[in-house]
Amino acid sequence: MFSHAEGLSSMVVKVAINGYGTIGKRVADAIDAQDDMEIVGVTKTRPSFGCDLAVRKGFPLYCTFDTDEKIAAFAPAGYDCKGGLSDLLAIADIVVDCSPGKVGAQNKEIYDNAGIKHIFQGGEKHAMTGMSYTSSGNHSENMNVQGTRVVSCNTTGLSRTLVPLLHACGSLSVECTMIRRAADPGDSSKGPINAIKPVLKVPSHHGPDVMTVRPEISINSLAVAVPTTIMHVHAIVATLPEGHGMTTESVLALWSEQPRVLIMNGSETGITTTAEVMEFSRDIGRKWGDLHEIFVWEDGVKLDGNNLYYFQAIHQESDVIPENVDAIRALMGLESDWKASVLKTDEAIAAYNGL
Amino acid sequence: MFSHAEGLSSMVVKVAINGYGTIGKRVADAIDAQDDMEIVGVTKTRPSFGCDLAVRKGFPLYCTFDTDEKIAAFAPAGYDCKGGLSDLLAIADIVVDCSPGKVGAQNKEIYDNAGIKHIFQGGEKHAMTGMSYTSSGNHSENMNVQGTRVVSCNTTGLSRTLVPLLHACGSLSVECTMIRRAADPGDSSKGPINAIKPVLKVPSHHGPDVMTVRPEISINSLAVAVPTTIMHVHAIVATLPEGHGMTTESVLALWSEQPRVLIMNGSETGITTTAEVMEFSRDIGRKWGDLHEIFVWEDGVKLDGNNLYYFQAIHQESDVIPENVDAIRALMGLESDWKASVLKTDEAIAAYNGL
Amino acid sequence: MFSHAEGLSSMVVKVAINGYGTIGKRVADAIDAQDDMEIVGVTKTRPSFGCDLAVRKGFPLYCTFDTDEKIAAFAPAGYDCKGGLSDLLAIADIVVDCSPGKVGAQNKEIYDNAGIKHIFQGGEKHAMTGMSYTSSGNHSENMNVQGTRVVSCNTTGLSRTLVPLLHACGSLSVECTMIRRAADPGDSSKGPINAIKPVLKVPSHHGPDVMTVRPEISINSLAVAVPTTIMHVHAIVATLPEGHGMTTESVLALWSEQPRVLIMNGSETGITTTAEVMEFSRDIGRKWGDLHEIFVWEDGVKLDGNNLYYFQAIHQESDVIPENVDAIRALMGLESDWKASVLKTDEAIAAYNGL
Amino acid sequence: MFSHAEGLSSMVVKVAINGYGTIGKRVADAIDAQDDMEIVGVTKTRPSFGCDLAVRKGFPLYCTFDTDEKIAAFAPAGYDCKGGLSDLLAIADIVVDCSPGKVGAQNKEIYDNAGIKHIFQGGEKHAMTGMSYTSSGNHSENMNVQGTRVVSCNTTGLSRTLVPLLHACGSLSVECTMIRRAADPGDSSKGPINAIKPVLKVPSHHGPDVMTVRPEISINSLAVAVPTTIMHVHAIVATLPEGHGMTTESVLALWSEQPRVLIMNGSETGITTTAEVMEFSRDIGRKWGDLHEIFVWEDGVKLDGNNLYYFQAIHQESDVIPENVDAIRALMGLESDWKASVLKTDEAIAAYNGL
Repeated sequence: MFSHAEGLSSMVVKVAINGYGTIGKRVADAIDAQDDMEIVGVTKTRPSFGCDLAVRKGFPLYCTFDTDEKIAAFAPAGYDCKGGLSDLLAIADIVVDCSPGKVGAQNKEIYDNAGIKHIFQGGEKHAMTGMSYTSSGNHSENMNVQGTRVVSCNTTGLSRTLVPLLHACGSLSVECTMIRRAADPGDSSKGPINAIKPVLKVPSHHGPDVMTVRPEISINSLAVAVPTTIMHVHAIVATLPEGHGMTTESVLALWSEQPRVLIMNGSETGITTTAEVMEFSRDIGRKWGDLHEIFVWEDGVKLDGNNLYYFQAIHQESDVIPENVDAIRALMGLESDWKASVLKTDEAIAAYNGL
Repeated sequence: MFSHAEGLSSMVVKVAINGYGTIGKRVADAIDAQDDMEIVGVTKTRPSFGCDLAVRKGFPLYCTFDTDEKIAAFAPAGYDCKGGLSDLLAIADIVVDCSPGKVGAQNKEIYDNAGIKHIFQGGEKHAMTGMSYTSSGNHSENMNVQGTRVVSCNTTGLSRTLVPLLHACGSLSVECTMIRRAADPGDSSKGPINAIKPVLKVPSHHGPDVMTVRPEISINSLAVAVPTTIMHVHAIVATLPEGHGMTTESVLALWSEQPRVLIMNGSETGITTTAEVMEFSRDIGRKWGDLHEIFVWEDGVKLDGNNLYYFQAIHQESDVIPENVDAIRALMGLESDWKASVLKTDEAIAAYNGL
Repeated sequence: MFSHAEGLSSMVVKVAINGYGTIGKRVADAIDAQDDMEIVGVTKTRPSFGCDLAVRKGFPLYCTFDTDEKIAAFAPAGYDCKGGLSDLLAIADIVVDCSPGKVGAQNKEIYDNAGIKHIFQGGEKHAMTGMSYTSSGNHSENMNVQGTRVVSCNTTGLSRTLVPLLHACGSLSVECTMIRRAADPGDSSKGPINAIKPVLKVPSHHGPDVMTVRPEISINSLAVAVPTTIMHVHAIVATLPEGHGMTTESVLALWSEQPRVLIMNGSETGITTTAEVMEFSRDIGRKWGDLHEIFVWEDGVKLDGNNLYYFQAIHQESDVIPENVDAIRALMGLESDWKASVLKTDEAIAAYNGL
Repeated sequence: MFSHAEGLSSMVVKVAINGYGTIGKRVADAIDAQDDMEIVGVTKTRPSFGCDLAVRKGFPLYCTFDTDEKIAAFAPAGYDCKGGLSDLLAIADIVVDCSPGKVGAQNKEIYDNAGIKHIFQGGEKHAMTGMSYTSSGNHSENMNVQGTRVVSCNTTGLSRTLVPLLHACGSLSVECTMIRRAADPGDSSKGPINAIKPVLKVPSHHGPDVMTVRPEISINSLAVAVPTTIMHVHAIVATLPEGHGMTTESVLALWSEQPRVLIMNGSETGITTTAEVMEFSRDIGRKWGDLHEIFVWEDGVKLDGNNLYYFQAIHQESDVIPENVDAIRALMGLESDWKASVLKTDEAIAAYNGL
């Protein structure tokens, strides 16, 4: 009995969140909803209003740094800081790095020295760990590895719809134009207010990043930023190989079986822009109004010869959240079947959301 | 025993929602969270995607109209329509009218003929029922009346901060400029995209509407619409009477004791625009990311002689939601103490939201 | 001498503008600047503020309709209306139809009955006249025809950069994503304010319209509307035929020789979005701040194997303006060399603008 | 003859522009259009794309700094730099400082040392020169002074409508809410994209700045920034003294006689937002589509007892431009009658614009 209880206990993976911001706060909640993992602490760089959310959620608070001075700064502001990053890593099995992009390299060294498994986000380069991750793309290749990178919201979105096409057709050549939101909803400093901003480096880095999870997909992309805060939209032309045997209907059928792909008909539902997509997410009661799924307009899909044209909308703040949960399962060797992990993750999140 | 059970049962007020849209869906959820009232049905004009939400929530679905043809149209679309508006009114104690503005007059006649108590929203005129309502403004005057109108989001917001000032000072003269969001978040059709639109009727109707709940407040307003979707902002100059004895600090202290007024310091929290206010609402886990409270920036309040300057932000989709619950209690004679009703309403909603 | 003078005089083509709005007012000005054509009248549907501009410019004002009542309505409003459309057509050699889209069919019949040459705009269908026009695409095919259609701003823009590529390479296969401004600068009614709206009909009609001027170009397109008022942006992937022999540099060299294509380096000039492109247009003193040229970012062009990636920005209000002038020359048989016409048109406009 | 020629020559004031940006480029053009002043040079900090405009206009180019190295940097970039700021000041009678806000203090010292008359812009503090200027407010007080400050676009706008009211009524108490554009049209970096940003310092500094030109006007203001690029809007409540004798009509009549105030009826003209106001400016052919006038909606003016309610729209890029010309005349002692100066300035600019 006792050993059984111990066994059960040891099955609950202890997770540290390094960086409790836009992504970190969501990943923490999603992990908290699972029964095979738990949050043992989250970090903030300094006592700030953002600490309140961690306190409200009951997540132990740590300092991003190990210096006594920085740790001590929390108490006068009324926050109970449990220690520095090293203290947190010492009690965790794995760390999810949600720090701002480009500080990963120095964190990598810390994690390696601590001998702790680690997951970075899409703002970091693939080369840092040599592994990247999407649930549908390469879960099994990530089983039991020491470190990986959950790819960006855009790459995650592309993986959701392109990987099943790849499996169905054998090969795939893709051109994608990304129409990107220029700032997140809670960010009031960034523009433009009235302009379109092309990413002049062409082709852009966004599309080829898909190849870090499925190198068989040949893909390029162009990107522009536009004055909206709520979603990215991808305009995609996927060229299927000769003799693909697909139809518009069979593509839709294929996607409808995929987890985390949501297909709705714009003219039937009135969901014709990203505004109505986000309103739908608010209606179904998701935390923060998030949409973990990739949204595909059924009436915006058309296979024309070998060219498949479609639009998909990406909720930039949240589509990677459940993928982080699955990635923890892969790295910790908890579940080798990606669909089983996805099912478990999503059921727990949905229950948590009261749906 | 039997009679006791009946007694308990009779204490749960049966509420009909006529019009299950932006306001209706929120009011229904808020009522559903209370233990002294329940939703017996919601109406839609026709089978449409919006019915799905009612089904998901488990609210019985009725047709806004009584014609057999319109009622019968729901079944082929896969929705179980229980009947027409008359059928719904027949089983309800009170109806909350959340239909689009300006159709109230014809509905008023229907409700009067059905002999049912009724609550309209701020899009209708005060004259229709001769009564208006805000929780802090005139709850007791609305006790046991047959019909009333919960005032608009703007008037509700003004009532929250001005009524306590009125009580503290005895009289009040106010000029308010309303900087209004031009469209709701889920509305992709309305502009402007890059312009400011003044409401050329000056003074505007918005401010004086406060006098329908507290005629002692002398108030005028100017209004403009601007290209944002998330909140209105009020820029207010309230002139206190000579010898008012108030200070900036005492005004803040007064408001901090008021229900549904949230005071935060912009420079300390980083919440300096409506973007961060809404992000805060998402963080605290409110359904739809709603903010029922009026948001006042502590560092944007200044009493300069007799003139009190301040800004407040209004979540146009939701500040009236809890007021509808309180209004039901007033009309049904359930609770005569407005603060007791507010406390009960808000605790139930907060519990419902998992906070 | 006398006959010579008469000869000169008869060379000045008399042009009617039917519809003096966003496009009409600009075309009128551009024609007014030429020495081989003149405006003999412009039409408005009714006395309105827009008539003032015609009066200020000195263009004779006519009514879009022939009914006495409608013509008589102008005088009380203080406008001198010279008559109805028929009166105008009777004194003109050619009419440029700048009426709102989709009313062309009925106008076509009027023009045919009047036996007058006519030019429609891109809002009308190619089939109506069976001819379409861009200066660089098919000027010679439009010589002396009775009626044609100057294609839309988007098609005009595509023609400017794709036709030279076609001539250089022999064939061309193109995918274009159009990121479109959702409303014009002077339009305050249209949204969305905060959303991306995909055109769900895929592929969209925009790209293939290029084939009405150069059928050899194989092209498809996807389109989205975004919350900006100032320019469209095209994200283009043009696949050159095997053995094309082009380089990124040779493509840029080719375009730099084309009229009405403006190539600038974003990182060198700081012109990195459509905001700075439009500011540049204001700086060079163009009327209305217009940019007749297609703007290509030099550092956003890259030939990668056979795929040419590039962005171009389209001033939706004005790129077709000089093309209308050239189209008049084609239809009236004034100039068979398209480059000569373009040079003449642009020099006159530039002089007119005081540059 | 010779002395007469010298005399004529000495009547043309030689003006230096220090800082050739958004304001500088417009002031230079406006001065260039006058017959009693001329541009002898404009400065840029370094060789950049902005120099092209100066070259195109034919204005001699100088470096903002005097160091040889910085001056020498222009030649390699292809620009003919005539020297440093000191060289320019040595040949000028007066300098208009259009450098970015807050660098005025150090420039003040340079001008004082050079003994040259100088005009700062509204980004600098009144205290620096102890003098401020608007054409209608205090032209005569600025006659022959050594240095002054042309106030900001907002203060200039308030002065245009409030000073005549002050003269008509004897005293005036004003509350103004400023709804400000968050970025200029050519600026793609600033946000917010979807938020309203109150200026939390209340009352704001904007309104009281009017008192630097007419201290008799008692005024306070509140300000918010909104996601638009094209104009500020002021929502104003001006309280007239008891026994003022004014009516809505007499106020409109008063303003209609004022230079640089444009009164139009929104419902008659369809000009109901800042979008249509700016389109009107483009239509009348102003350079950059500028509107030097303050735009007042006739149907948005209402005198209600002693309170005058009205809206006015301010073109933030240009309303101060003609005031700089008038200020030069004041400081140089050229014209003591402000209306005569305004008339001369505006006629020259209008002619220059080809109207």
